[in-house]
Amino acid sequence: MSVHKTAIIGLGAIGMGMAQSAHVAGLQTVGMDINPTAMESLAASGAGVAETPAKAAAGVDSLAVVVVNAAQTETVLFGDNGAADTLPKGAVVLGCATVPADTCRQIAARVEERGLHYLDSPISGGAAKAASGELTVMASGTAVAFDRAKPFLDATSETVFDLGREAGQGSTMKMVNQLLAGVHIATAMEAVALGLKAGLNAQSIYDVITRAAGNSWMFENRVPRVIASDYQPKSAAGIFTKDLGIVLSEAERLGLELPLARTALSRYRAAADMGLKGEDDAAVIKVYAAAAGIDLPEPVN
Amino acid sequence: MSVHKTAIIGLGAIGMGMAQSAHVAGLQTVGMDINPTAMESLAASGAGVAETPAKAAAGVDSLAVVVVNAAQTETVLFGDNGAADTLPKGAVVLGCATVPADTCRQIAARVEERGLHYLDSPISGGAAKAASGELTVMASGTAVAFDRAKPFLDATSETVFDLGREAGQGSTMKMVNQLLAGVHIATAMEAVALGLKAGLNAQSIYDVITRAAGNSWMFENRVPRVIASDYQPKSAAGIFTKDLGIVLSEAERLGLELPLARTALSRYRAAADMGLKGEDDAAVIKVYAAAAGIDLPEPVN
Repeated sequence: MSVHKTAIIGLGAIGMGMAQSAHVAGLQTVGMDINPTAMESLAASGAGVAETPAKAAAGVDSLAVVVVNAAQTETVLFGDNGAADTLPKGAVVLGCATVPADTCRQIAARVEERGLHYLDSPISGGAAKAASGELTVMASGTAVAFDRAKPFLDATSETVFDLGREAGQGSTMKMVNQLLAGVHIATAMEAVALGLKAGLNAQSIYDVITRAAGNSWMFENRVPRVIASDYQPKSAAGIFTKDLGIVLSEAERLGLELPLARTALSRYRAAADMGLKGEDDAAVIKVYAAAAGIDLPEPVN
Repeated sequence: MSVHKTAIIGLGAIGMGMAQSAHVAGLQTVGMDINPTAMESLAASGAGVAETPAKAAAGVDSLAVVVVNAAQTETVLFGDNGAADTLPKGAVVLGCATVPADTCRQIAARVEERGLHYLDSPISGGAAKAASGELTVMASGTAVAFDRAKPFLDATSETVFDLGREAGQGSTMKMVNQLLAGVHIATAMEAVALGLKAGLNAQSIYDVITRAAGNSWMFENRVPRVIASDYQPKSAAGIFTKDLGIVLSEAERLGLELPLARTALSRYRAAADMGLKGEDDAAVIKVYAAAAGIDLPEPVN
């Protein structure tokens, strides 16, 4: 059996980790990014790099598009020097960006028109899980798309949920996850703000809540950043402005009101208005602190 | 050393479990409730019962008030046939209801004026944990209050957080927990509604989210009720109308806006307006289903 050839377009925190996991697992791996530093970093790890999506895509079995949104996904595939022009017939495209389910279906149709396969493949996990090849993928697509993508998924993911035979189902699940995650982060910050304002300390709030019914994955993950006063962006506040925007526009298309998602989005927007868009999303607590005069924990030196 | 004598006033799901745990652990236990069925049930387990708070309190070392709010707590302690008149000097009162921190401090002061001790002791856990003596208690009070309450806490609780020497700190932590829990339940229902409306099935949403970053303690606990279409009240929707109301009134006193808690409260109120106040809080999903025409899972026969 020949070696699986794969290309990863988009070498941000997740894409870089996926490319390195694929390379370490023995796939013939090539990466591409518009950022030359990312390209150098991947090349230093021994994987290949290419200057354009078209060059990266030539001759591969699978191509993962790990960019930030639908517009970038379309440019990578169908723009100048796009990957769709050079992908061999029968290759599979994995769409990993968070995109509206409807847009996902349109992209899948355009890909399939060219004799290619499409796997709707949004991701949950973060940079560390990507680097260790332990991502969670919320996948949907044809049986052939799954089959062609298997060597790549085996190399990069711990858990692949098969959500059905149609592109769009994976993206829908990702929206459900992002709604929850986005509201939970903002709620964690609202709750910690209340506790601090009422005289509790942040560490004691963390210790109790993580063992009580108020806990969430995001509370447990983000509140330590507030305690350490570390707002360097592990996950920038701007991501949820984007993702909750997608969630709300899809809900509007479906005729569904999402008051909690809408309120959470207003918190991320308030953070952006305070100039915090590039800080970690835990910086949403600064919106509450500024409004109510709350002293946040100071950095430990 | 003599046997610790304790009284539990309020034999709802939690109070009954606490009384039974105390009895099983060998404390001399007496319970009191206005509901005769609850009294019979406790008596059948071998513990004592009393007709009034005053009679229950006579001669005890500790008295736990496990009622629904501040007004009931005050009636139990200071009303006609109230416990404060008969509690021996030096006994400790454990206030277990969810009450505003400010009210808690006022009640503690009135108790202490009478030569009694007060432990602010709100609870997290639910009926099953109460029955097995494994509650989590968010406690604050004087060292003496903790010391006097220790045999009772040992008998009924797995984890006792010591949140400081002042009554009110425990109640504040409980508010932080209820804010999170109340928002998380409503958000779980909003997210499942979105997924269902977009064509996913509820079981697959549960399977993916409980292994992804969107998970919360409440999502994991409540979504199975939606999947099973079981809205019998394990925790009635009306509880969070009350508790989020307390959270918001305390926040107003502190000069803090809580937009997510306020939005979640509007969801519980919408459920109450639909006549769902006595159903389980997972019935909040019916608010979304009714507004957007979503088919919820049917009961399995």
